[in-house]
Amino acid sequence: MRFTSQTSSAGVTEQLFTLTSTFGEIPGVLWTPDAATGTRPLILMGHGGGQHKQAPGMVARAHRFAAECGFAVAAVDAPGHGDRTKTEEHNRIITELRTRAQSGGDVTPLVAAFHTLLTDQTVPEWRAVLDALQQLDHVGPGPVGYWGLSMGCGLGVPFIAAEPRIRAAVLGLNGAETSAEAAAQITVPVEFLVQWDDEMVPRAASLALFDVIASPEKTLHANPGKHGDVPMFELDSSLRFFTRHLT
Amino acid sequence: MRFTSQTSSAGVTEQLFTLTSTFGEIPGVLWTPDAATGTRPLILMGHGGGQHKQAPGMVARAHRFAAECGFAVAAVDAPGHGDRTKTEEHNRIITELRTRAQSGGDVTPLVAAFHTLLTDQTVPEWRAVLDALQQLDHVGPGPVGYWGLSMGCGLGVPFIAAEPRIRAAVLGLNGAETSAEAAAQITVPVEFLVQWDDEMVPRAASLALFDVIASPEKTLHANPGKHGDVPMFELDSSLRFFTRHLT
Repeated sequence: MRFTSQTSSAGVTEQLFTLTSTFGEIPGVLWTPDAATGTRPLILMGHGGGQHKQAPGMVARAHRFAAECGFAVAAVDAPGHGDRTKTEEHNRIITELRTRAQSGGDVTPLVAAFHTLLTDQTVPEWRAVLDALQQLDHVGPGPVGYWGLSMGCGLGVPFIAAEPRIRAAVLGLNGAETSAEAAAQITVPVEFLVQWDDEMVPRAASLALFDVIASPEKTLHANPGKHGDVPMFELDSSLRFFTRHLT
Repeated sequence: MRFTSQTSSAGVTEQLFTLTSTFGEIPGVLWTPDAATGTRPLILMGHGGGQHKQAPGMVARAHRFAAECGFAVAAVDAPGHGDRTKTEEHNRIITELRTRAQSGGDVTPLVAAFHTLLTDQTVPEWRAVLDALQQLDHVGPGPVGYWGLSMGCGLGVPFIAAEPRIRAAVLGLNGAETSAEAAAQITVPVEFLVQWDDEMVPRAASLALFDVIASPEKTLHANPGKHGDVPMFELDSSLRFFTRHLT
Protein backbone atom coordinates (compact mmCIF):
# COMPACT_ATOMS: atom_id res chain seq x y z
CA MET A 1 0.00 0.00 0.00
CA ARG A 2 1.63 3.18 -1.25
CA PHE A 3 0.32 6.59 -0.11
CA THR A 4 0.47 9.20 -2.86
CA SER A 5 -1.05 12.29 -1.23
CA GLN A 6 -2.37 13.56 2.09
CA THR A 7 -4.69 16.51 2.75
CA SER A 8 -6.78 17.61 5.70
CA SER A 9 -10.11 19.41 5.94
CA ALA A 10 -12.47 20.04 8.86
CA GLY A 11 -10.60 17.69 11.17
CA VAL A 12 -10.45 14.78 8.73
CA THR A 13 -7.29 13.57 6.97
CA GLU A 14 -7.69 12.17 3.47
CA GLN A 15 -4.92 9.92 2.14
CA LEU A 16 -4.88 8.63 -1.43
CA PHE A 17 -3.23 5.25 -1.89
CA THR A 18 -2.45 2.63 -4.47
CA LEU A 19 -2.41 -1.07 -3.74
CA THR A 20 -0.75 -3.49 -6.14
CA SER A 21 -2.84 -6.61 -6.64
CA THR A 22 -3.04 -9.53 -9.05
CA PHE A 23 -5.62 -7.44 -10.95
CA GLY A 24 -3.27 -4.46 -11.26
CA GLU A 25 -3.10 -1.24 -9.30
CA ILE A 26 -6.12 -0.48 -7.08
CA PRO A 27 -6.57 3.27 -6.42
CA GLY A 28 -8.07 4.00 -3.03
CA VAL A 29 -8.66 6.63 -0.38
CA LEU A 30 -8.51 6.49 3.40
CA TRP A 31 -10.15 9.02 5.70
CA THR A 32 -9.24 9.21 9.40
CA PRO A 33 -9.64 11.85 12.11
CA ASP A 34 -6.67 14.26 12.06
CA ALA A 35 -3.69 12.98 14.04
CA ALA A 36 -5.38 9.61 14.64
CA THR A 37 -3.24 6.91 16.23
CA GLY A 38 -4.19 3.41 17.27
CA THR A 39 -6.84 0.87 16.32
CA ARG A 40 -10.35 2.08 15.49
CA PRO A 41 -13.50 0.82 13.71
CA LEU A 42 -13.17 0.87 9.92
CA ILE A 43 -15.97 1.43 7.40
CA LEU A 44 -15.42 0.19 3.85
CA MET A 45 -17.60 2.12 1.39
CA GLY A 46 -18.59 0.78 -2.02
CA HIS A 47 -19.57 3.50 -4.51
CA GLY A 48 -22.49 3.36 -6.94
CA GLY A 49 -22.35 2.50 -10.64
CA GLY A 50 -20.73 5.22 -12.77
CA GLN A 51 -19.40 6.92 -9.60
CA HIS A 52 -15.98 6.67 -7.98
CA LYS A 53 -14.15 6.60 -4.64
CA GLN A 54 -14.29 10.39 -4.17
CA ALA A 55 -17.77 11.18 -5.51
CA PRO A 56 -19.29 14.01 -3.42
CA GLY A 57 -21.66 11.72 -1.51
CA MET A 58 -18.78 9.40 -0.63
CA VAL A 59 -16.64 12.25 0.71
CA ALA A 60 -19.55 13.73 2.70
CA ARG A 61 -20.35 10.39 4.35
CA ALA A 62 -16.69 9.61 5.07
CA HIS A 63 -16.28 12.98 6.78
CA ARG A 64 -19.24 12.34 9.06
CA PHE A 65 -18.07 8.80 9.98
CA ALA A 66 -14.55 10.06 10.72
CA ALA A 67 -15.38 13.38 12.40
CA GLU A 68 -18.42 12.33 14.44
CA CYS A 69 -17.56 8.70 15.24
CA GLY A 70 -13.75 8.70 15.06
CA PHE A 71 -13.86 5.86 12.52
CA ALA A 72 -11.45 5.14 9.69
CA VAL A 73 -13.23 5.04 6.31
CA ALA A 74 -11.89 3.63 3.05
CA ALA A 75 -13.08 3.45 -0.55
CA VAL A 76 -11.54 2.15 -3.76
CA ASP A 77 -12.45 2.67 -7.39
CA ALA A 78 -14.36 -0.36 -8.63
CA PRO A 79 -13.01 -1.97 -11.82
CA GLY A 80 -13.81 0.28 -14.80
CA HIS A 81 -14.61 3.24 -12.53
CA GLY A 82 -12.80 6.42 -11.44
CA ASP A 83 -9.05 6.23 -12.16
CA ARG A 84 -9.24 2.66 -13.50
CA THR A 85 -9.44 1.85 -17.19
CA LYS A 86 -12.46 0.12 -18.62
CA THR A 87 -11.97 -3.20 -20.42
CA GLU A 88 -13.63 -3.91 -23.74
CA GLU A 89 -16.23 -5.99 -21.90
CA HIS A 90 -16.98 -3.15 -19.45
CA ASN A 91 -17.51 -0.79 -22.38
CA ARG A 92 -19.74 -3.25 -24.20
CA ILE A 93 -22.03 -3.78 -21.18
CA ILE A 94 -22.16 -0.05 -20.32
CA THR A 95 -23.11 0.83 -23.90
CA GLU A 96 -25.82 -1.84 -23.87
CA LEU A 97 -27.08 -0.54 -20.51
CA ARG A 98 -27.35 3.04 -21.80
CA THR A 99 -29.10 1.97 -24.98
CA ARG A 100 -31.60 -0.16 -23.14
CA ALA A 101 -32.23 2.51 -20.46
CA GLN A 102 -32.84 5.16 -23.13
CA SER A 103 -35.35 2.93 -24.91
CA GLY A 104 -37.17 2.35 -21.60
CA GLY A 105 -36.29 -1.34 -21.54
CA ASP A 106 -35.65 -3.50 -18.46
CA VAL A 107 -32.03 -3.02 -17.44
CA THR A 108 -32.18 -5.46 -14.51
CA PRO A 109 -30.61 -8.50 -16.24
CA LEU A 110 -27.79 -6.35 -17.68
CA VAL A 111 -27.06 -4.71 -14.32
CA ALA A 112 -27.01 -8.15 -12.70
CA ALA A 113 -24.63 -9.48 -15.39
CA PHE A 114 -22.34 -6.47 -14.88
CA HIS A 115 -22.25 -6.93 -11.11
CA THR A 116 -21.52 -10.64 -11.48
CA LEU A 117 -18.69 -9.88 -13.89
CA LEU A 118 -17.18 -7.40 -11.44
CA THR A 119 -17.50 -9.40 -8.21
CA ASP A 120 -15.08 -12.09 -9.37
CA GLN A 121 -12.54 -9.30 -9.14
CA THR A 122 -13.87 -7.04 -6.38
CA VAL A 123 -14.19 -9.67 -3.65
CA PRO A 124 -10.46 -10.57 -3.66
CA GLU A 125 -9.57 -6.90 -4.21
CA TRP A 126 -11.54 -5.74 -1.16
CA ARG A 127 -9.96 -8.50 0.94
CA ALA A 128 -6.47 -7.41 -0.13
CA VAL A 129 -7.32 -3.78 0.65
CA LEU A 130 -8.67 -4.76 4.05
CA ASP A 131 -5.52 -6.81 4.81
CA ALA A 132 -3.35 -3.79 3.98
CA LEU A 133 -5.49 -1.25 5.88
CA GLN A 134 -5.44 -3.35 9.04
CA GLN A 135 -1.63 -3.19 9.02
CA LEU A 136 -1.74 0.59 9.43
CA ASP A 137 -1.13 2.00 12.89
CA HIS A 138 -4.07 4.45 12.67
CA VAL A 139 -6.53 1.77 11.46
CA GLY A 140 -5.45 -1.54 13.00
CA PRO A 141 -7.40 -4.80 13.37
CA GLY A 142 -10.59 -3.22 14.80
CA PRO A 143 -14.20 -4.07 13.96
CA VAL A 144 -15.13 -3.52 10.29
CA GLY A 145 -18.38 -2.33 8.71
CA TYR A 146 -19.42 -2.12 5.07
CA TRP A 147 -21.57 0.64 3.53
CA GLY A 148 -22.75 0.29 -0.08
CA LEU A 149 -25.90 1.16 -2.01
CA SER A 150 -26.90 0.32 -5.57
CA MET A 151 -23.77 -1.15 -7.25
CA GLY A 152 -22.06 -0.78 -3.87
CA CYS A 153 -24.67 -3.22 -2.55
CA GLY A 154 -24.48 -5.54 -5.56
CA LEU A 155 -20.71 -5.83 -5.17
CA GLY A 156 -20.80 -5.67 -1.37
CA VAL A 157 -23.12 -8.61 -0.72
CA PRO A 158 -20.72 -11.31 -2.05
CA PHE A 159 -17.83 -9.58 -0.24
CA ILE A 160 -19.65 -9.54 3.11
CA ALA A 161 -20.70 -13.17 2.64
CA ALA A 162 -17.05 -14.14 2.02
CA GLU A 163 -15.38 -11.95 4.65
CA PRO A 164 -15.86 -12.79 8.33
CA ARG A 165 -14.16 -9.56 9.44
CA ILE A 166 -17.24 -7.55 8.34
CA ARG A 167 -19.39 -7.20 11.44
CA ALA A 168 -22.27 -4.96 10.22
CA ALA A 169 -23.45 -3.51 6.91
CA VAL A 170 -25.63 -0.79 5.44
CA LEU A 171 -26.92 -1.99 2.07
CA GLY A 172 -29.77 -1.30 -0.35
CA LEU A 173 -31.00 0.20 -3.64
CA ASN A 174 -30.39 -3.15 -5.28
CA GLY A 175 -32.45 -6.21 -6.10
CA ALA A 176 -32.14 -9.92 -5.57
CA GLU A 177 -31.06 -10.73 -9.14
CA THR A 178 -27.33 -10.31 -8.63
CA SER A 179 -26.68 -11.63 -5.23
CA ALA A 180 -29.48 -13.65 -3.66
CA GLU A 181 -27.26 -16.67 -3.11
CA ALA A 182 -24.57 -14.66 -1.33
CA ALA A 183 -27.17 -12.68 0.63
CA ALA A 184 -28.50 -15.93 2.09
CA GLN A 185 -25.06 -16.41 3.70
CA ILE A 186 -24.99 -13.01 5.43
CA THR A 187 -25.69 -13.24 9.15
CA VAL A 188 -24.31 -9.92 10.50
CA PRO A 189 -26.64 -7.01 11.36
CA VAL A 190 -27.84 -5.20 8.23
CA GLU A 191 -29.64 -1.90 7.69
CA PHE A 192 -31.20 -2.11 4.24
CA LEU A 193 -32.40 0.98 2.32
CA VAL A 194 -35.21 0.91 -0.23
CA GLN A 195 -36.45 3.84 -2.31
CA TRP A 196 -40.18 3.23 -2.59
CA ASP A 197 -40.44 4.74 -6.09
CA ASP A 198 -37.06 3.53 -7.38
CA GLU A 199 -37.06 3.86 -11.17
CA MET A 200 -34.05 1.53 -11.52
CA VAL A 201 -34.71 -1.27 -9.03
CA PRO A 202 -38.21 -2.81 -8.93
CA ARG A 203 -39.71 -2.63 -5.42
CA ALA A 204 -40.37 -6.37 -5.35
CA ALA A 205 -36.73 -7.13 -6.20
CA SER A 206 -35.51 -4.92 -3.33
CA LEU A 207 -37.89 -6.54 -0.86
CA ALA A 208 -36.82 -9.97 -2.13
CA LEU A 209 -33.14 -9.19 -1.47
CA PHE A 210 -33.93 -7.97 2.06
CA ASP A 211 -36.03 -11.08 2.58
CA VAL A 212 -33.23 -13.51 1.70
CA ILE A 213 -30.57 -11.97 3.99
CA ALA A 214 -30.10 -14.50 6.79
CA SER A 215 -29.20 -12.02 9.55
CA PRO A 216 -31.27 -12.34 12.74
CA GLU A 217 -30.99 -8.54 13.06
CA LYS A 218 -31.86 -6.81 9.80
CA THR A 219 -33.89 -3.64 9.38
CA LEU A 220 -35.44 -2.38 6.18
CA HIS A 221 -35.83 1.40 5.85
CA ALA A 222 -38.04 2.43 2.93
CA ASN A 223 -38.59 6.05 1.93
CA PRO A 224 -40.59 7.68 -0.86
CA GLY A 225 -38.73 8.92 -3.90
CA LYS A 226 -36.51 7.74 -6.71
CA HIS A 227 -33.18 5.90 -6.75
CA GLY A 228 -31.16 9.01 -5.94
CA ASP A 229 -33.51 10.50 -3.33
CA VAL A 230 -32.37 8.73 -0.13
CA PRO A 231 -33.23 11.26 2.61
CA MET A 232 -30.43 12.82 4.65
CA PHE A 233 -31.76 11.42 7.93
CA GLU A 234 -30.80 7.93 6.74
CA LEU A 235 -27.14 8.93 7.05
CA ASP A 236 -27.83 9.84 10.70
CA SER A 237 -29.33 6.38 11.05
CA SER A 238 -26.27 4.73 9.41
CA LEU A 239 -24.00 6.50 11.90
CA ARG A 240 -26.04 5.24 14.83
CA PHE A 241 -26.23 1.74 13.33
CA PHE A 242 -22.44 1.45 12.97
CA THR A 243 -21.86 3.06 16.36
CA ARG A 244 -24.17 0.45 17.91
CA HIS A 245 -22.48 -2.50 16.24
CA LEU A 246 -18.81 -1.51 15.94
CA THR A 247 -18.10 0.27 19.23
CA MET B 1 -61.36 16.33 32.96
CA ARG B 2 -61.23 15.03 36.50
CA PHE B 3 -57.96 13.75 38.00
CA THR B 4 -58.44 10.76 40.29
CA SER B 5 -54.88 9.88 41.33
CA GLN B 6 -51.31 11.05 41.05
CA THR B 7 -48.11 9.06 41.55
CA SER B 8 -44.48 9.63 40.64
CA SER B 9 -41.68 7.22 39.70
CA ALA B 10 -38.20 7.81 38.25
CA GLY B 11 -38.84 11.48 37.53
CA VAL B 12 -42.19 10.95 35.79
CA THR B 13 -45.58 11.90 37.21
CA GLU B 14 -48.53 9.68 36.29
CA GLN B 15 -52.03 11.16 36.65
CA LEU B 16 -55.15 9.07 36.11
CA PHE B 17 -58.13 11.03 34.81
CA THR B 18 -61.73 10.63 33.69
CA LEU B 19 -63.29 12.70 30.94
CA THR B 20 -67.04 12.82 30.54
CA SER B 21 -68.07 12.58 26.89
CA THR B 22 -71.22 11.90 24.89
CA PHE B 23 -70.10 8.25 24.87
CA GLY B 24 -69.80 8.09 28.66
CA GLU B 25 -66.78 8.31 30.94
CA ILE B 26 -63.39 7.97 29.22
CA PRO B 27 -60.66 6.67 31.57
CA GLY B 28 -57.23 8.05 30.74
CA VAL B 29 -53.70 8.58 31.99
CA LEU B 30 -51.30 11.49 31.59
CA TRP B 31 -47.54 11.25 32.08
CA THR B 32 -45.38 14.36 32.46
CA PRO B 33 -41.91 15.06 33.83
CA ASP B 34 -42.09 15.68 37.61
CA ALA B 35 -42.91 19.30 38.48
CA ALA B 36 -43.52 20.16 34.82
CA THR B 37 -44.99 23.59 34.12
CA GLY B 38 -45.75 25.24 30.81
CA THR B 39 -46.50 24.11 27.26
CA ARG B 40 -44.66 21.09 25.85
CA PRO B 41 -45.02 18.57 23.01
CA LEU B 42 -47.70 15.95 23.66
CA ILE B 43 -47.72 12.34 22.45
CA LEU B 44 -51.08 10.56 22.29
CA MET B 45 -50.61 6.79 22.48
CA GLY B 46 -53.17 4.30 21.20
CA HIS B 47 -52.85 0.83 22.76
CA GLY B 48 -53.15 -2.51 20.95
CA GLY B 49 -56.19 -4.80 20.81
CA GLY B 50 -56.91 -6.55 24.12
CA GLN B 51 -54.50 -4.18 25.92
CA HIS B 52 -55.21 -1.01 27.87
CA LYS B 53 -53.89 2.45 28.69
CA GLN B 54 -51.44 1.18 31.33
CA ALA B 55 -50.20 -2.02 29.71
CA PRO B 56 -46.48 -2.48 30.53
CA GLY B 57 -45.29 -1.46 27.05
CA MET B 58 -47.38 1.71 27.20
CA VAL B 59 -45.95 2.71 30.59
CA ALA B 60 -42.38 1.97 29.50
CA ARG B 61 -42.70 4.10 26.34
CA ALA B 62 -44.44 6.92 28.18
CA HIS B 63 -41.62 7.04 30.73
CA ARG B 64 -38.99 7.35 28.03
CA PHE B 65 -40.89 10.09 26.14
CA ALA B 66 -41.43 12.06 29.36
CA ALA B 67 -38.06 11.49 31.05
CA GLU B 68 -35.77 11.74 28.01
CA CYS B 69 -37.65 14.26 25.86
CA GLY B 70 -39.65 16.23 28.44
CA PHE B 71 -42.86 15.45 26.56
CA ALA B 72 -46.36 14.99 27.96
CA VAL B 73 -47.83 11.59 27.04
CA ALA B 74 -51.47 10.52 27.26
CA ALA B 75 -53.40 7.31 26.70
CA VAL B 76 -57.04 6.34 27.13
CA ASP B 77 -58.75 2.97 27.28
CA ALA B 78 -60.33 2.23 23.90
CA PRO B 79 -64.02 1.31 23.97
CA GLY B 80 -64.42 -2.21 25.36
CA HIS B 81 -60.86 -2.21 26.76
CA GLY B 82 -59.26 -1.70 30.21
CA ASP B 83 -61.68 -0.07 32.66
CA ARG B 84 -64.47 0.29 30.06
CA THR B 85 -67.30 -2.19 29.72
CA LYS B 86 -67.75 -4.19 26.56
CA THR B 87 -71.02 -3.89 24.66
CA GLU B 88 -72.84 -6.94 23.37
CA GLU B 89 -71.46 -6.19 19.90
CA HIS B 90 -67.88 -5.96 21.21
CA ASN B 91 -68.30 -9.35 22.88
CA ARG B 92 -69.80 -10.91 19.77
CA ILE B 93 -66.92 -9.76 17.53
CA ILE B 94 -64.22 -10.71 20.07
CA THR B 95 -65.70 -14.20 20.45
CA GLU B 96 -65.80 -14.60 16.68
CA LEU B 97 -62.20 -13.36 16.42
CA ARG B 98 -60.97 -15.90 19.00
CA THR B 99 -62.84 -18.76 17.36
CA ARG B 100 -61.52 -17.93 13.93
CA ALA B 101 -57.95 -17.39 15.18
CA GLN B 102 -57.99 -20.75 16.99
CA SER B 103 -59.17 -22.54 13.85
CA GLY B 104 -56.36 -20.88 11.84
CA GLY B 105 -58.80 -18.86 9.73
CA ASP B 106 -58.23 -15.40 8.25
CA VAL B 107 -59.06 -12.85 10.96
CA THR B 108 -58.35 -9.80 8.77
CA PRO B 109 -61.95 -8.97 7.78
CA LEU B 110 -63.13 -9.34 11.39
CA VAL B 111 -60.32 -7.14 12.74
CA ALA B 112 -61.14 -4.55 10.10
CA ALA B 113 -64.85 -4.65 11.01
CA PHE B 114 -63.99 -4.24 14.70
CA HIS B 115 -61.74 -1.25 14.02
CA THR B 116 -64.39 0.39 11.85
CA LEU B 117 -67.00 -0.12 14.57
CA LEU B 118 -64.71 1.49 17.15
CA THR B 119 -63.48 4.47 15.14
CA ASP B 120 -66.94 6.05 14.92
CA GLN B 121 -66.49 6.49 18.65
CA THR B 122 -62.73 6.85 19.11
CA VAL B 123 -62.17 9.74 16.69
CA PRO B 124 -64.50 12.15 18.57
CA GLU B 125 -63.29 10.76 21.90
CA TRP B 126 -59.63 11.42 21.10
CA ARG B 127 -60.51 14.94 19.93
CA ALA B 128 -62.35 15.65 23.19
CA VAL B 129 -59.39 14.28 25.19
CA LEU B 130 -56.97 16.42 23.20
CA ASP B 131 -59.13 19.53 23.76
CA ALA B 132 -59.09 18.91 27.51
CA LEU B 133 -55.36 18.08 27.72
CA GLN B 134 -54.41 21.26 25.90
CA GLN B 135 -56.21 23.29 28.58
CA LEU B 136 -53.81 22.01 31.23
CA ASP B 137 -51.00 24.30 32.31
CA HIS B 138 -48.34 21.53 32.14
CA VAL B 139 -49.43 20.37 28.63
CA GLY B 140 -50.76 23.42 26.79
CA PRO B 141 -51.34 23.95 23.06
CA GLY B 142 -47.94 22.60 21.91
CA PRO B 143 -47.20 20.32 18.93
CA VAL B 144 -48.93 16.93 19.09
CA GLY B 145 -47.75 13.50 17.93
CA TYR B 146 -49.58 10.18 17.78
CA TRP B 147 -48.05 6.76 18.50
CA GLY B 148 -50.06 3.62 17.82
CA LEU B 149 -49.35 0.11 16.53
CA SER B 150 -51.73 -2.70 15.61
CA MET B 151 -55.20 -1.61 16.83
CA GLY B 152 -53.58 1.67 17.90
CA CYS B 153 -52.74 2.17 14.22
CA GLY B 154 -56.14 1.02 12.97
CA LEU B 155 -57.89 3.49 15.26
CA GLY B 156 -55.20 6.15 14.91
CA VAL B 157 -55.23 6.54 11.14
CA PRO B 158 -58.80 7.97 10.92
CA PHE B 159 -58.04 10.18 13.95
CA ILE B 160 -54.87 11.62 12.41
CA ALA B 161 -56.66 12.16 9.10
CA ALA B 162 -59.40 14.10 10.91
CA GLU B 163 -57.26 16.07 13.35
CA PRO B 164 -54.99 18.84 12.04
CA ARG B 165 -53.30 19.28 15.42
CA ILE B 166 -51.43 15.97 14.93
CA ARG B 167 -48.09 16.89 13.40
CA ALA B 168 -46.27 13.51 13.23
CA ALA B 169 -47.12 9.86 13.83
CA VAL B 170 -45.54 6.49 14.50
CA LEU B 171 -47.85 3.81 13.12
CA GLY B 172 -47.70 0.20 11.94
CA LEU B 173 -48.48 -3.48 12.55
CA ASN B 174 -51.74 -3.01 10.72
CA GLY B 175 -52.96 -3.50 7.16
CA ALA B 176 -54.79 -1.45 4.60
CA GLU B 177 -58.17 -3.13 5.09
CA THR B 178 -59.45 -0.87 7.87
CA SER B 179 -58.19 2.48 6.99
CA ALA B 180 -56.85 2.92 3.47
CA GLU B 181 -59.26 5.76 2.69
CA ALA B 182 -58.27 7.73 5.79
CA ALA B 183 -54.57 6.93 5.28
CA ALA B 184 -54.73 8.58 1.86
CA GLN B 185 -55.60 11.84 3.66
CA ILE B 186 -52.59 11.77 6.00
CA THR B 187 -49.86 14.20 4.99
CA VAL B 188 -47.81 14.61 8.19
CA PRO B 189 -44.48 12.77 8.67
CA VAL B 190 -45.01 9.09 9.50
CA GLU B 191 -42.68 6.38 10.75
CA PHE B 192 -44.34 3.08 9.91
CA LEU B 193 -43.35 -0.23 11.56
CA VAL B 194 -43.72 -3.61 9.89
CA GLN B 195 -42.90 -6.99 11.39
CA TRP B 196 -41.59 -9.01 8.45
CA ASP B 197 -42.98 -12.31 9.76
CA ASP B 198 -46.18 -10.91 11.29
CA GLU B 199 -48.57 -13.82 11.93
CA MET B 200 -51.57 -11.47 12.28
CA VAL B 201 -51.10 -8.89 9.53
CA PRO B 202 -50.15 -10.12 6.04
CA ARG B 203 -46.96 -8.45 4.79
CA ALA B 204 -48.64 -7.27 1.61
CA ALA B 205 -51.43 -5.57 3.60
CA SER B 206 -48.87 -3.69 5.74
CA LEU B 207 -46.92 -2.54 2.69
CA ALA B 208 -50.20 -1.49 1.05
CA LEU B 209 -51.14 0.70 4.02
CA PHE B 210 -47.70 2.35 4.02
CA ASP B 211 -48.03 2.84 0.27
CA VAL B 212 -51.33 4.71 0.48
CA ILE B 213 -50.25 7.22 3.16
CA ALA B 214 -49.99 10.56 1.34
CA SER B 215 -47.20 12.07 3.46
CA PRO B 216 -44.20 13.38 1.51
CA GLU B 217 -42.05 12.23 4.43
CA LYS B 218 -42.86 8.69 5.45
CA THR B 219 -40.40 5.97 6.45
CA LEU B 220 -41.09 2.27 6.65
CA HIS B 221 -39.04 0.29 9.18
CA ALA B 222 -39.36 -3.47 8.75
CA ASN B 223 -37.77 -5.97 11.13
CA PRO B 224 -37.77 -9.76 11.27
CA GLY B 225 -40.06 -11.46 13.74
CA LYS B 226 -43.69 -11.82 14.68
CA HIS B 227 -46.37 -9.27 15.57
CA GLY B 228 -45.11 -8.80 19.13
CA ASP B 229 -41.37 -8.81 18.35
CA VAL B 230 -40.74 -5.13 17.49
CA PRO B 231 -37.09 -4.62 18.49
CA MET B 232 -36.22 -2.22 21.30
CA PHE B 233 -34.12 0.01 19.03
CA GLU B 234 -37.32 1.08 17.25
CA LEU B 235 -38.35 2.91 20.42
CA ASP B 236 -35.05 4.83 20.24
CA SER B 237 -35.99 5.65 16.67
CA SER B 238 -39.50 6.82 17.69
CA LEU B 239 -37.95 9.16 20.26
CA ARG B 240 -35.67 10.70 17.65
CA PHE B 241 -38.53 10.91 15.13
CA PHE B 242 -40.80 12.84 17.51
CA THR B 243 -37.91 14.99 18.72
CA ARG B 244 -37.13 15.90 15.09
CA HIS B 245 -40.74 16.80 14.25
CA LEU B 246 -42.19 18.22 17.47
CA THR B 247 -39.34 20.29 18.90
